[in-house]
Amino acid sequence: MSLLLLALAQAAAAKPLTPSDIVAQAPATAWETLSPDDLMVIDYADGQRTVIQLAPAFAPVHVANIRALARADYWKASSVYRVQDNYVAQWGVNEGGPTMPASVVRKPPAEYHRAMAGLAIRPLGFADPYAPRVGHALGWPIAYNPRNGRANLAHCYGMVGVGRDMAPDTGTGGELYAVIGQAPRHLDRNIALVGRVVEGIENLSALPRGTEALGFYKAGTVARAIRTVRLASALPAAGRPSFQVMRTGSASFAAYVRARANRNDAFFQVPAGGVDLCNAPVPVRRTPALPSPR
Amino acid sequence: MSLLLLALAQAAAAKPLTPSDIVAQAPATAWETLSPDDLMVIDYADGQRTVIQLAPAFAPVHVANIRALARADYWKASSVYRVQDNYVAQWGVNEGGPTMPASVVRKPPAEYHRAMAGLAIRPLGFADPYAPRVGHALGWPIAYNPRNGRANLAHCYGMVGVGRDMAPDTGTGGELYAVIGQAPRHLDRNIALVGRVVEGIENLSALPRGTEALGFYKAGTVARAIRTVRLASALPAAGRPSFQVMRTGSASFAAYVRARANRNDAFFQVPAGGVDLCNAPVPVRRTPALPSPR
Repeated sequence: MSLLLLALAQAAAAKPLTPSDIVAQAPATAWETLSPDDLMVIDYADGQRTVIQLAPAFAPVHVANIRALARADYWKASSVYRVQDNYVAQWGVNEGGPTMPASVVRKPPAEYHRAMAGLAIRPLGFADPYAPRVGHALGWPIAYNPRNGRANLAHCYGMVGVGRDMAPDTGTGGELYAVIGQAPRHLDRNIALVGRVVEGIENLSALPRGTEALGFYKAGTVARAIRTVRLASALPAAGRPSFQVMRTGSASFAAYVRARANRNDAFFQVPAGGVDLCNAPVPVRRTPALPSPR
Repeated sequence: MSLLLLALAQAAAAKPLTPSDIVAQAPATAWETLSPDDLMVIDYADGQRTVIQLAPAFAPVHVANIRALARADYWKASSVYRVQDNYVAQWGVNEGGPTMPASVVRKPPAEYHRAMAGLAIRPLGFADPYAPRVGHALGWPIAYNPRNGRANLAHCYGMVGVGRDMAPDTGTGGELYAVIGQAPRHLDRNIALVGRVVEGIENLSALPRGTEALGFYKAGTVARAIRTVRLASALPAAGRPSFQVMRTGSASFAAYVRARANRNDAFFQVPAGGVDLCNAPVPVRRTPALPSPR
């Protein structure tokens, strides 16, 4: 048997790790604990909850607005008012509503992209129909263009953006949406993305679809009422939710992406040999409890 | 003003057509009416309905199985038993169930791909992370490889496939799933795709997510009970549902894809210049009523 064949036979004999195996086995150093100021907690009237990680590195003015709105309990007694199948669920204060805090910037800059510089991008290494290059940076899925040095967050499943009217309006942050279908990447560079859902996406994605144009609910229909939206930092320390995101520069993340692109567990006949940016979601987990002292 | 600038000014002055405009304006010749033997109608216990177009040109043995099962009312009193967020909703007879008709092939061939020959493929013209080429044929989204002459249906949102156990099992067709999230294209060439949902996807996508591993419902939970599944050809002619799919070889479809790739209506600041295969869903509509005689 040639050395090459021998190596292949050995590789085949070792049970290949699935993406889930790799996530489960990742060392503590592969995980970054999120700041409680970067976590926004939506508590619904029925006791359910959705938690969103904010992305101040990509949309600082919009994120500052959103933090100010959360601190003012701006969204209390608001609702999810639009759910369009295979597109978005949208919530917040659609029209009227409480006065915004004075610190809220009413006409934020676009923040549709930022400089690649400082991002330490990990290239995905596979083709993309929307951008010259795609990859990950600071734990986020991004598209980027080395020719103009710009990078932008990508509209993957679960990403959260700022509702707006016609351009050049960019929205204040008072209305937000989450992607609940095939990645609408044509919205990239056209809307400010400000974060992603890290827990409780099903409280948005499994809602009844709105029956009016663009999936808006008929007036008077409330499928999910919001009780309050707060930053995790405003919650009592005991019981405050805490999450970790896999470091996209880690060896574990590289192995995870390779495994997503080359599924070779027993179910699969043919590995794809590639993966879409939005089909390799960055692993997120609740921060594990510290081991108890003995 | 230079000729180029003049042309640009004229182009800007003409209100650009949105993808929806193009679909609404497409001539009758751009539409193909589906055979009632290619439409499978799922009627749920609560009166809701999902309609699926079958794809005999891609998975003839599996589709013959599914037609035989529908004609035998095999799925009466079955249910949707798995809903995994951002992945699939799965239904049918999970274990046990009625005896299958004798004509059902118990171990169908894989039917994971077919010959490109005869497909008259329309290339999408944009990069894809999963396949050398992607495009459309016979009204379906496909991936293909000119080097080996093979084409396969693509796992886009709403596509329907055959549940199976570990390879080389291919499934009989007694259990089916629909994609309800980001296109799981890694399943391409690993599972038999047999059709797509043409109406009523929300009766699957908006269901509560299953709480057990892989989104299976806990035993005893029935979020959506199936009353009967029939081919449209088995329904009374009056009231039988009828659908049309845009011909993917038509000029209207080409214009639609161009518009999806270059959104330039007032909402957009920057057209993407590309589109994912699964973000240009083939337009489907109910067959319009004939104009009444005067």
